[in-house]
Amino acid sequence: MFEARLDSSVTLKKVLEAIKDLLNDASFDCSDTGIQLQAMDNSHVSLVSLTLKSDGFDKYRCDRNITMGMNLASMVKILKCANNDDTVTIKAQDDADTVTFMFESKKQDKISDYAMKLMNLDQEHLGIPDTDFSCVIRMPSIEFARICRDLAQFGESIGIACTKEGVKFSASGDIGSANVKIAQTSNFEKEEESVTIEMQEPVALTFACQYLNSFTKATPLSPQVQLSMSDNVPLVVEYTVPELGHIRYYLAPKIEEDEN
Amino acid sequence: MFEARLDSSVTLKKVLEAIKDLLNDASFDCSDTGIQLQAMDNSHVSLVSLTLKSDGFDKYRCDRNITMGMNLASMVKILKCANNDDTVTIKAQDDADTVTFMFESKKQDKISDYAMKLMNLDQEHLGIPDTDFSCVIRMPSIEFARICRDLAQFGESIGIACTKEGVKFSASGDIGSANVKIAQTSNFEKEEESVTIEMQEPVALTFACQYLNSFTKATPLSPQVQLSMSDNVPLVVEYTVPELGHIRYYLAPKIEEDEN
Amino acid sequence: MFEARLDSSVTLKKVLEAIKDLLNDASFDCSDTGIQLQAMDNSHVSLVSLTLKSDGFDKYRCDRNITMGMNLASMVKILKCANNDDTVTIKAQDDADTVTFMFESKKQDKISDYAMKLMNLDQEHLGIPDTDFSCVIRMPSIEFARICRDLAQFGESIGIACTKEGVKFSASGDIGSANVKIAQTSNFEKEEESVTIEMQEPVALTFACQYLNSFTKATPLSPQVQLSMSDNVPLVVEYTVPELGHIRYYLAPKIEEDEN
Repeated sequence: MFEARLDSSVTLKKVLEAIKDLLNDASFDCSDTGIQLQAMDNSHVSLVSLTLKSDGFDKYRCDRNITMGMNLASMVKILKCANNDDTVTIKAQDDADTVTFMFESKKQDKISDYAMKLMNLDQEHLGIPDTDFSCVIRMPSIEFARICRDLAQFGESIGIACTKEGVKFSASGDIGSANVKIAQTSNFEKEEESVTIEMQEPVALTFACQYLNSFTKATPLSPQVQLSMSDNVPLVVEYTVPELGHIRYYLAPKIEEDEN
Repeated sequence: MFEARLDSSVTLKKVLEAIKDLLNDASFDCSDTGIQLQAMDNSHVSLVSLTLKSDGFDKYRCDRNITMGMNLASMVKILKCANNDDTVTIKAQDDADTVTFMFESKKQDKISDYAMKLMNLDQEHLGIPDTDFSCVIRMPSIEFARICRDLAQFGESIGIACTKEGVKFSASGDIGSANVKIAQTSNFEKEEESVTIEMQEPVALTFACQYLNSFTKATPLSPQVQLSMSDNVPLVVEYTVPELGHIRYYLAPKIEEDEN
Repeated sequence: MFEARLDSSVTLKKVLEAIKDLLNDASFDCSDTGIQLQAMDNSHVSLVSLTLKSDGFDKYRCDRNITMGMNLASMVKILKCANNDDTVTIKAQDDADTVTFMFESKKQDKISDYAMKLMNLDQEHLGIPDTDFSCVIRMPSIEFARICRDLAQFGESIGIACTKEGVKFSASGDIGSANVKIAQTSNFEKEEESVTIEMQEPVALTFACQYLNSFTKATPLSPQVQLSMSDNVPLVVEYTVPELGHIRYYLAPKIEEDEN
């Protein structure tokens, strides 16, 4: 028997929004420590890793480890039927071929349950090595989303160059060239609006715009985003899932010997 | 001479929204008791019946009975030119081939008139017998619209099962199955939000989603909707038109011997 | 060296919105008195004339007269990257083939610069003779936009007839006919909402709907619009650009001997 309850459906909706453009289907691995999802995106370029810890749920029970393969478009349709403040309970029997989503209104005058068929998906578990990063940038997630969206108008790649003073994002193409410079914040009054940089050595890397823009679909989850960069290893873009865990996106830098 | 005036155009706009998806053209029968419209929808499956009583208008005059055939898309275009708080006056001569809509701003600094050609439409007057229904459900119109929209994602039909305790709406299809249960309200503080059930005997019927969703276009007219059901007779979905009358939609249940 | 700065990007965004549908590319003539743009629209029917005076800018420097040919779609893409309250600085070297737009956030924590390639455009400078108009109408710009949009549903032309009492806009077509009458305002409490008419003699002219609707893209610039009309000369539709100057659109009346 698997059962996980959240007093509000809104976080689950946001998690789904954060992965549904990258993944058609996904395997959710449920154990007594929580729910894990790890998958390459549909084009096998970037990697998504989602961790939701059991103790962040309002109720959580997982008698035996189960893996539930779900079609994300169907899951989105079902979650759309929940009001943001509905309690949501996800249930499955140990040997189930369906999962049930139950939504309850706060006043208990409306109870909905949606049963969805599970899928058998091939799974590839990828070991992600721990890395010490040359630069770790924390900045407002809305600002990062805005910059990725703006620069996407100018070219297919975005350069991210990090020094102690700040971060420079750049792009160029037919229209011309664009540079956006963000300075490290000196005052720390509002943590959510701050830009902080932990730097071992400067890094300048280039990434495909399209994937960065997909990652920013997670923006509603968290006011801050963390970008971790080192030469020759994938960029890690991390958003906190409030109380439950985090979502991490991995994207290898572009190799541009000719252009630089 | 026919002349009917409303101090605000907003109700007329909402009435039009409630019928324009079901009917391309419609005959408005005007007499000294008011305006009547009765018509099968474009696909001849459901029936629309609209009653606007003369004493609900701010001014009403109808010297001789006239029937005005109007193209609803043109009527929508004209009504879009009125501000919500404009006074609207509908005028026609007894032997007219045009109808005039006059809109006056509250400050009288803007006066618009739109003349529209009338149409000759075949009319079929259908006798609708009075029925004692097994179940009469009153519920918030927004909730009904929400359920019809949600369940339309799961299948082409919606089951409505009514008992003393409450109403169960259900649908199923490729994605899986969905059930939404609404309980009868115990406290009656806010009448608009209440769910009330008058039941002679339980009823469970199935209806085509598409038509129920068209009926819910009337939602802005009224905070409550009334569903009347009996075995083997059409469902009646009724919305009040404030001060003026009501709009009723009739839809026969699906016969599903094989499936049940 | 050319440099022009505005403490807020919002006016520049609105100016661009006001011309981008009419012009694909445009030549901005910069001198020490300000920036001028004059061009026939893409279909060579109407004329756009924009004047931004140097003393309306927060900083302005123009060492030598330069003409900068810009693609307006690219310019729109760049301006979209500015927040409304960003400071915007436009810069170009005297012999430059690029122009730079720099956006600075009020807190100075984000600085962006966008370099855009300039274009060589054929220029046709048209002398616009000063005319004494038979009628000059000032009215709320939103009302004028609303009327043009409403009447566009009924026909391709809009008649504008001006007398001392007021202005009548009319259109007709397949659906029927439409007349909108606006009265001159008697009280002048709110100047922005007033309708004022200066008349030498009554005028009644007809114009192509499509162009009037394009002109109304300038509505966000100014609460009032001024329409100047005389027989046999182009209508002038003028919007104030706050603190900086104005934008004027010229459109010749339709000649409809057969119809009248």
